[in-house]
Amino acid sequence: MASPVYAEKAAFDRMARIVLKFGGTSVADVDRMRRAAAFIKREADAGHSVAVAVSAMAGETNRLVALCADAGPPDPALDVRNVEYDAVVASGEQVTSGLVALILQKLGYRARSWQGWQAPVRTDGAHGKARILDIPAEILGEAIDTGEIAVVAGFQGIAPGDRISTLGRGGSDTTAVALAAALGAERCDIYTDVDGVYTTDPRISKQARRLDKVSYEEMLEMASLGAKVLQTRSVELAMAHKVRVRVLSSFGDPGRASPGTVICDEDEIVEKQIVSAVTLSKDEAKISLMGVPDEPGRASMIFGLLADAGVNIDMIVQSPSRQSGANLSFTMADSELPRAVETLTLAKPKIGYDQMLTDHNIVKVSVVGVGMRSHTGVASTMFKALAEKAINIQNISTSEIKISVLIAAEYGELAVRALHQAYGLDRSAGAA
Amino acid sequence: MASPVYAEKAAFDRMARIVLKFGGTSVADVDRMRRAAAFIKREADAGHSVAVAVSAMAGETNRLVALCADAGPPDPALDVRNVEYDAVVASGEQVTSGLVALILQKLGYRARSWQGWQAPVRTDGAHGKARILDIPAEILGEAIDTGEIAVVAGFQGIAPGDRISTLGRGGSDTTAVALAAALGAERCDIYTDVDGVYTTDPRISKQARRLDKVSYEEMLEMASLGAKVLQTRSVELAMAHKVRVRVLSSFGDPGRASPGTVICDEDEIVEKQIVSAVTLSKDEAKISLMGVPDEPGRASMIFGLLADAGVNIDMIVQSPSRQSGANLSFTMADSELPRAVETLTLAKPKIGYDQMLTDHNIVKVSVVGVGMRSHTGVASTMFKALAEKAINIQNISTSEIKISVLIAAEYGELAVRALHQAYGLDRSAGAA
Repeated sequence: MASPVYAEKAAFDRMARIVLKFGGTSVADVDRMRRAAAFIKREADAGHSVAVAVSAMAGETNRLVALCADAGPPDPALDVRNVEYDAVVASGEQVTSGLVALILQKLGYRARSWQGWQAPVRTDGAHGKARILDIPAEILGEAIDTGEIAVVAGFQGIAPGDRISTLGRGGSDTTAVALAAALGAERCDIYTDVDGVYTTDPRISKQARRLDKVSYEEMLEMASLGAKVLQTRSVELAMAHKVRVRVLSSFGDPGRASPGTVICDEDEIVEKQIVSAVTLSKDEAKISLMGVPDEPGRASMIFGLLADAGVNIDMIVQSPSRQSGANLSFTMADSELPRAVETLTLAKPKIGYDQMLTDHNIVKVSVVGVGMRSHTGVASTMFKALAEKAINIQNISTSEIKISVLIAAEYGELAVRALHQAYGLDRSAGAA
Repeated sequence: MASPVYAEKAAFDRMARIVLKFGGTSVADVDRMRRAAAFIKREADAGHSVAVAVSAMAGETNRLVALCADAGPPDPALDVRNVEYDAVVASGEQVTSGLVALILQKLGYRARSWQGWQAPVRTDGAHGKARILDIPAEILGEAIDTGEIAVVAGFQGIAPGDRISTLGRGGSDTTAVALAAALGAERCDIYTDVDGVYTTDPRISKQARRLDKVSYEEMLEMASLGAKVLQTRSVELAMAHKVRVRVLSSFGDPGRASPGTVICDEDEIVEKQIVSAVTLSKDEAKISLMGVPDEPGRASMIFGLLADAGVNIDMIVQSPSRQSGANLSFTMADSELPRAVETLTLAKPKIGYDQMLTDHNIVKVSVVGVGMRSHTGVASTMFKALAEKAINIQNISTSEIKISVLIAAEYGELAVRALHQAYGLDRSAGAA
């Protein structure tokens, strides 16, 4: 009788195209690249056709961005600047791709680097945050089927006009998933500095457990809620193309297969947890407008102005003011607060509020799980667990598979640990 | 009555395509690039169509080569390694081209970077030391004629198979000259850390003077004799395509035009000096084979073996041995000595010499000048000047426009100063 683990292993072992991705910390220097090469070697030795997507060496992208900022600070009105940023910053992945190919050659494998324009990874013209349109990877695919290992520079592509484009931060995950889709790869293994997706951040709770499987939808929510394992766009792409993604560590022993966490279709997950994970997002800021005239269209005006300024609003609460009109509170990413404040200060006469208050000392704690769809009482468990720790909820938002609450920053870690226990996620079931 | 200086200025000022090149020290950091941009700006403001070739930031190529050597040491038998070296190392110029374009944009100019594969700079497949075959620069040319400044990544090109190639050390000079030829540019200005070509190295003699003009032939001899101002290949290319090259400093004031040194056709140089320059090459090593059997074909066997090992032999002297057979002495670049010694040690039984001696403590001092063609007594002046300082000549070689002597290293600087004076090159004529 085959165990599920055995069945999965068999599926992984048959000859197929596979894509591996190594992030910045996994290729931080030549020694780290040699470790990465040991993982690549294992897959090639198993007879797979292997393509690899690599990031820039850790710290390199920041160095290049700083050089660009010194040469010509970004200007949203000048897209030509973004084009040159892309040419400079894409050099980081170019270097890694060549070095990893050299290491594989030294190990006796046929290997070559592929830049974005060579693969080619065709993108739109939104330089600095380009979207992949298509990877016509016939030639690359034929090359790997002959046994040559393709080392593809992640994060970059070729835009209309044959200019170098980049996909924005974390874009190498997207390269890997898009490449896997284009190659019809059996799986896409994302090697990183953690050995999978956890029920919560292990630095916050020692009770955190690695998840064997997570659905695309859950991973999407978790990615946008501050779990930094995978970039949101890469998960969207994996979901759209049904690419089986596995997250695993490049810091382990290449000789021993690590199961990691498989991100896959919900249908594949037999035992659905009501709540799969608890996340904590510290990148939150709140604006409260006091005394907004209580007239139709006023909220629409405010959020229209903010949208035009490129500010993404997350949670919104409107409540009657004790004085006059209404109080309107809403949250956004910390980095977008200055732009929001500037926009609302300029528009004060037009909007007609009394006072604007801002708050950085807030965090968002969320519980995520596809099981919520078919279970009731998930929210009340959350509120009860937080109330028991005397944590005040400032704001609530929900989706079909998650509930988020806004609380004072100082209670963040405590709330995560309390919820992790309340939903039965603790490693030692029943323990405190 | 227009003075020659005025006539030249007028020729420079009319609207035309021009190419500027900035070497590693001239783009060592963003501040240095801003200085380079000031020179570019001056040409653009004068209404010229401007293309710029840039090197990697000083030190960057060495850093990238060291990373490659760590990842997979060079192996002459493995050309695939050179292909990946090229992908890695070419990233240095990619970064500079983007940054210089950003700086020009910030100054309010339209500018864009062009990588080797974009220009395109088509090369052969000799990765690591590729030769430029063709630059079909119609699109680039049209772009600069609209006033957009083209910032071309030097040193790199695109080889058959659409792989990134590099031209070998100093290749950015070659890029600039080839680009000037392809664009039909009126001139090619090479900005470097010296303000022109000197009668000798100013660090050796305070009497050294900047030359206003040097012929292609003289510059070629000087480049191969250790004057590091321009790379030999770029001078050959300039001569073949009659590209007017000017060497000038990027460390001066961009507001004041520096004349630099023009490298041009011999016919343009009205007052030909008998000797234009004195050079000193320290990169010399000598091998002496004692007691080589004095039979026909023996020298041909020795130099055939060395040629097969990739050793370039410079000066050769054969003299009868006091014991038996002949003594054969020859020189090569210092870096090639180990390979030569290894080759000759292995072949000792076949060649049948008694003893091999090596010598590093030698230098080559040369005098160069197109005037030699039509003047006699050049060599005797040289030998007399050296004899007066009691400097022993170990070896002599000549070409139509140069005489080189091999002497003990400790006399190198003294010999240069003596010859500089003997040929009337000293700044203060008649002074010691």
